[in-house]
This record gives sequence, C-alpha cells and structure tokens, in this order.
Amino acid sequence: MSNPVRVGIAGLGTVGAGVLRLLVANAEVISARAGRAVVVTAVSARDRTRDRGAALDGVRWHDDPVALAADPEVDVVVELIGGADGPARALVEAALSARRPVVTANKAMLAVHGASLAAAAEEAGVALAFEAAVAGGIPVIKTLREGLAANRITRIAGILNGTCNYILSRMRAEGRDFAEILADAQRLGYAEADPSFDIDGIDAAHKLAILAALAFGRPVAFGAVHVEGIRGVSAQDIRFAGELGYRIKLLGLAHATAAGVSARVHPALVAEDAPLARVEGVYNAVVAEGDFVGRVMLEGRGAGAGPTASAVVADLIDIARGRATPVWGAAGAALSDAPSVPIADHMGCYYLRLMVVDRPGVIADVTAVLRDHGVSLESMLQRGRAPGETVAVVLVTHETREAAMAAALERIAALDAVLEAPTMLRIEPA
Amino acid sequence: MSNPVRVGIAGLGTVGAGVLRLLVANAEVISARAGRAVVVTAVSARDRTRDRGAALDGVRWHDDPVALAADPEVDVVVELIGGADGPARALVEAALSARRPVVTANKAMLAVHGASLAAAAEEAGVALAFEAAVAGGIPVIKTLREGLAANRITRIAGILNGTCNYILSRMRAEGRDFAEILADAQRLGYAEADPSFDIDGIDAAHKLAILAALAFGRPVAFGAVHVEGIRGVSAQDIRFAGELGYRIKLLGLAHATAAGVSARVHPALVAEDAPLARVEGVYNAVVAEGDFVGRVMLEGRGAGAGPTASAVVADLIDIARGRATPVWGAAGAALSDAPSVPIADHMGCYYLRLMVVDRPGVIADVTAVLRDHGVSLESMLQRGRAPGETVAVVLVTHETREAAMAAALERIAALDAVLEAPTMLRIEPA
Repeated sequence: MSNPVRVGIAGLGTVGAGVLRLLVANAEVISARAGRAVVVTAVSARDRTRDRGAALDGVRWHDDPVALAADPEVDVVVELIGGADGPARALVEAALSARRPVVTANKAMLAVHGASLAAAAEEAGVALAFEAAVAGGIPVIKTLREGLAANRITRIAGILNGTCNYILSRMRAEGRDFAEILADAQRLGYAEADPSFDIDGIDAAHKLAILAALAFGRPVAFGAVHVEGIRGVSAQDIRFAGELGYRIKLLGLAHATAAGVSARVHPALVAEDAPLARVEGVYNAVVAEGDFVGRVMLEGRGAGAGPTASAVVADLIDIARGRATPVWGAAGAALSDAPSVPIADHMGCYYLRLMVVDRPGVIADVTAVLRDHGVSLESMLQRGRAPGETVAVVLVTHETREAAMAAALERIAALDAVLEAPTMLRIEPA
Repeated sequence: MSNPVRVGIAGLGTVGAGVLRLLVANAEVISARAGRAVVVTAVSARDRTRDRGAALDGVRWHDDPVALAADPEVDVVVELIGGADGPARALVEAALSARRPVVTANKAMLAVHGASLAAAAEEAGVALAFEAAVAGGIPVIKTLREGLAANRITRIAGILNGTCNYILSRMRAEGRDFAEILADAQRLGYAEADPSFDIDGIDAAHKLAILAALAFGRPVAFGAVHVEGIRGVSAQDIRFAGELGYRIKLLGLAHATAAGVSARVHPALVAEDAPLARVEGVYNAVVAEGDFVGRVMLEGRGAGAGPTASAVVADLIDIARGRATPVWGAAGAALSDAPSVPIADHMGCYYLRLMVVDRPGVIADVTAVLRDHGVSLESMLQRGRAPGETVAVVLVTHETREAAMAAALERIAALDAVLEAPTMLRIEPA
C-alpha cells in the first residue's frame, strides 16, 4: 500500500466535524477502497477548544485557512468554510496555484466562480472535487459526470433544498400556512434563523447551476438561472393543486432545447404519481433524462453531517486512487457554448389562482383576455358560490409561452373584479 | 487530445448493436468527456450480414471472439456474448492475460467466476468493468464502489429483474394469475421464450451476488445466495398483501450482520408506501444504506439496448480517462472474509396463507403450533365464512427466526384441516 493521503481541512463546523469522525470511524474500509490511508494532518477553524467528537492530537493547526495551501504536510485541501468569496475562495485559489487537489462542499463558490476555478484546476492539472456541493450524500455529481457520461442529457429535475421540501411537505400534510410552518421549522432546526437563502431559492439555484453545467457540458452560469422561492406558496394553492391531482414542490429544472439551455428554480405543480412528487420531508432527489439511458432518479438525504461527510470522503478516495475528471466533465476547450434561454421563452402549462368578486361576467372577462393572448384553458375550478363576495377561481392552461402568460396576467390583474395579484405556478411533467 | 481508444466488441446482439449506435450518435459528447475519441475497430459476431443500424465499414471482423484479445488494433475488449462460461469467459481471460482492459455486461460470468477474473485483472493491472451487468443504465456499480465508498454499507435491497417486476406489477393491477400474465409478457417480448432464468430468480441472484460483493467488500459468492423465484406468487396473495398494506416484489436483499453477510432473492411483502413498493413495470431500483450517508435509492430502466449501452460506454469513458477501480472495490488482499449467513438464521416477519377447512378448532391448532415454536402473531385475516368448505387464512408474524418458522410450517402443513402446502412470504422493511 502506498503512502497515506494527507488531508488539511479548513472549517470544522457540522460538516467538518463529520468528516473528522468519518475518517476515524471507517478508516479501515476507506483505506481498502482508497488503496491508501486517508489521514487528517492539518486543520483550520475559529475555535480551538470546541469538542468535535474526534481527537485532533498531533494535527497541525492554522489560524489562517489559506496557510493550509502551503502546508508541506498537506496533499489535499478540503474547503468547508462556505461562502462564495472570502477565505473559502482565497484558500481554494491558493491551493490550486500550489497544484494541490481541492475537495469542497461550497455550492455558492462553484456556482459563482466555477468557471475560473475550473480553469485554475485545469491549468494546475489537479482535481477540484465537489460531490458534497449538491444533494448531500447522493452521488449526483459522479452520476452526471461519469455514470451517465455516454448520454446527451436532455433534462434535469430535482428537489435540491431540504428546508423547502420539508416546509412544503408539512404545509400539505397539515393544511397550514407557510409562515406557521417556517416558524416551527426554525424552532426544530430544519430552517435557519435567517432562512432567505433557502426559501428564496438561492441555495437550490446554486445547485441547479452546477447540475446544468455538468449535464449539458457548458460553463456554469448561475446568473442565467431564473429563481423564485416558496414564500408565495399558500395552503390554499396546495389544497387546490391536490384537488387537481398535483403536489407543489420547489424544483430545480434544466432543459436542453434547440434554442439553448433553460435553467430555473421555482415552486411547481407535479402530478402526484410522478416520482418527484413522492419525495417528502428533508429528502433530496434528482431526475436525469438521457437519450440512451432514459430516466434515472437518485434519492437520499440532501444535507446533514453524515451524508455530506460521505460525499467529501468519496472525493478524497477518488483523489487517493488517482481518478481524475475535469471539473465540468470535459476540458474547458471542449465545453459547449449553448446560449441560455430566458424564462420568457419557457413553454409549459400553468396553474392560475384568481381572487375575484363572484358576479356574472367575471369569468368571461378573464377568459377573453386569455384568448386574446393565445392561451387556451384545460380546466377551471371554482369552489362554492358567494354572490358579491370574494371567491377563488383556479384555471389550468394548455401549453403556452411564458411571455404570453405574463402579458395576459398583467391584464387580468388590472380587471376590476380581480381583487388580489393573481397566483401563477408552472406545471411540470416531472 | 490523445489518441483514440480502440474498442473491440464481441457479440452484436441487442446490446452490442446499441453500443455501436451510441458510439456514433454521441461521438462528440463522448470524446469531450473521455478526453479522446472512442472508436470501434474490431468486432466478432455470428452473422456478418445482419443490419445493426450502424455501419461496420473498415471494422475488422473476427469469427472467433477470442481473437479480439490479440488484435493489435484493439485497446479495450467489450464482451457482450453472455453466459458464465464458453467463449465469453475464454475471451475475457485471454484479454486480461494480454493486459487489455475489459468491459462486460455479463452478470452470470461475474457472479460465478468473479473472484478468479478479479485476480487476473489485478495481476495484469488492467480494468475489468461491468456497470452494465446490474440494473442496466443505472450507475449502481459506480455508486457502491465509488460514490458511497466512505460508508460501511449495512443493507442493500433491490428490484433487479425487470421481467419479474413487470409480471408482478401487472398481476396486481389486473388481479390476474401468474401463468396468464407470463404468457402475455412472452407475447409482448417482456419475457423470454424460456423464462426460467428470470422468473426463478437466477438473474436477480447473479446481480445481487455482485452488489453484495461490492457493498461489503468481500469476494463474490453466488453460491451463498438463497434464491426463490415468483412462480409460487398467486393473485390471491397479492390481493391479501394489498389488504394488509403491502405489495409483493421480487427483491434482492443483502445485509451485513455481526454473524456475517446474508444474501437472498425472493418474493417479499413491502409496505406500499416504501420507495421500492412504488417501482413498477420494467423499472429497476436499488436502495443502499450506509452508516454515514443513510438511505440512497437509485431508479431507472434495468434493461434494453439504450440503457445497457449507456453503462457499457460509461465504462469505456472511465477507461479512456484512466480512472481505475479494483474489481470488487478493493485489492484482493484487502477484501473481507466475513462468512455467509444461511437463510435458516434469517430474522424477520412472515406472511403465511393457509387453505383450511372452515371448522371450529382449526385456528387453535395452528396457533398452538406457532406458539410451540416461539412464533408470535401480529395479525390474522380470514375473509368470509363457509362452514365445512375451504377458506384462506392469512397470518402475519412478529419477528422470528426462519428456522423456527420453517419447523412450525412443517407441522402446520401436516395438520388434517390444512389442505394445501402453506404459502410463506417474508416481509421486508424496504
């Protein structure tokens, strides 16, 4: 057996401590599978005194994480600090310039700076591995980049944020509204004190940008991802969706079309017998469709110390075995330059909920606007009658272009009888 | 970009023709991801004249597949002949001795001769890759061997045979009996003219033996797999299982316990809200449970030209990239020598169906026998009354040891009032 792989870890929060524990607990199977021992020789973290459930005796300690990149007793740098910029990025750039392979769980950094970091890794001829950045322990990066590498991927659909899926699952199960369940999730530790990164879809968009780059072999393009979060999803819409045979999920979606790549994160209606509809709670799942393989789905825990550490150490084992894969699946020069398709060009079916005054002629006015914009209706649902009062009307459209839908909605919102901003949700064939 | 990888393919049936077509259709993405072109330079098949949907101009033709191993214009040998022995094995052994990497879809050969073939590959220092041998295009080999490599896997559960899953799904949906649906499946091409390999569980057992070896890092042990097929599953049992909240699936199951590794293939009752219960038709799925990652499930098409070719070419891309992994995930010397646990030591819950004469005292006799063997009952179900006639009685036990269950069943079968051989099915927490 060869020399051990010497690992330097920056960031000893939940995930970092999990990696320390995993490397000790499973040292024997890891060295069998890696062909060499994988040992932590150096760390960097803010607090030297915290108990992390793993001994750090004899491990070199750096106050400055960037110093790990130059530590002569470190072969591989593991970056678990987080944040797109700051010390995380400085460390990764320093490690790559020093021709040291890097393992990171940092989706924000990869989504935002992935193109330049990939160029640096390619220039240095070392690995920049990030299995832990998307969907926790589910090996979705490896699956897209290696397992399905023979395919043209046509579509990716995923439940990529456990917090949002947990909240939406509970809203449906309990019939309660977003704010209530969010507060409860925060109390139970399923949502952060400042939850905006999760519930506004940013976290899922970082992950989707990474998956889309891998799936379609083109440079990561976070700025081109259309992002909507789940703050606007109401218990009422979840109930109406259920009556229509759908569940509402926050999905990350990417398609390759003749016009380019569309990438979006938003709440969507999914048929309740579709595989993604049945993924509940904190689980994550990714569906990939390839031209030869058909549909493949992967499901598992998308976060937490154990699953994330599992992914980090899998990357370390790959590096120990010398298994190299270009960051975005192909060398920079071999990546595609397919353009991004704006959301206005999205083609799909839509769910609309209007709060209207219950009086004759309202539906005729609404449907006339839809007709004027070429939007055709598949179904309409009105529950209860209350002449002169406010009632909800739910409309489901046939496939239409988003720009037409948006224009129609603007006019519908301006109708006298329409009392609140209309709710529009996309329906996905996941 | 480096020189092309020159591929020799033995066997141009459905899968071989699929590989030819895939390598042409997706040549551009494949060479981007492989870092080099992947081209077929030689083939061997019985019929030179058949149209395979891909041109073979300029490709060298060998009547003897074993000659591929020595062809100077072949870098990698792809074995798609099938069969545990015969020309398939001869070719793979010859290729490995000639230090040529091998890609195969041959589960029977790997299950039966995998230990000696792995030794030959390790000795030669070349890859023996077999992603296509299990679950078609689902990258389950890569997931177990690399993606989850940091984990101690504790359990594998899978739907590994599409023919059986198709038959059981239709039996449930249509309430029809095995023989009828089998005949229909044969007519439609979902089952072979001689279906025994599939429906008797042999094919699933080959695949399970491979998965268990990878999951638990020990030499492949096909002979130690307990195998039962689906011939004995009746529409009646599927219906009773449904009433109890279960579906019946042919599962491959492997556990690591303190006593060793248990591996078995048999029809089993699975709770209808469990992920594997919802995998219907020709889809395959594998659940892996790891100590850090938790439960991961992969689902997709388990057979067919496209998915299988996808897996074969993924292996070729790994070889083109120089990504090497030991056959069973670790070097031969690092494999575990955990013993196999016999089925008699299985601990679990059981479903029993007895056909009994409907008269007083019968249930008392049956339950007395169970009590004598330490088997305790969770529930009992008897539909309808017909004094003096035959009725079905369904019993569900609490967890018990298989040896106790078998001994009790032998005595129950001998009771006067019990008119047919009892049906016993295991209940699994999948």
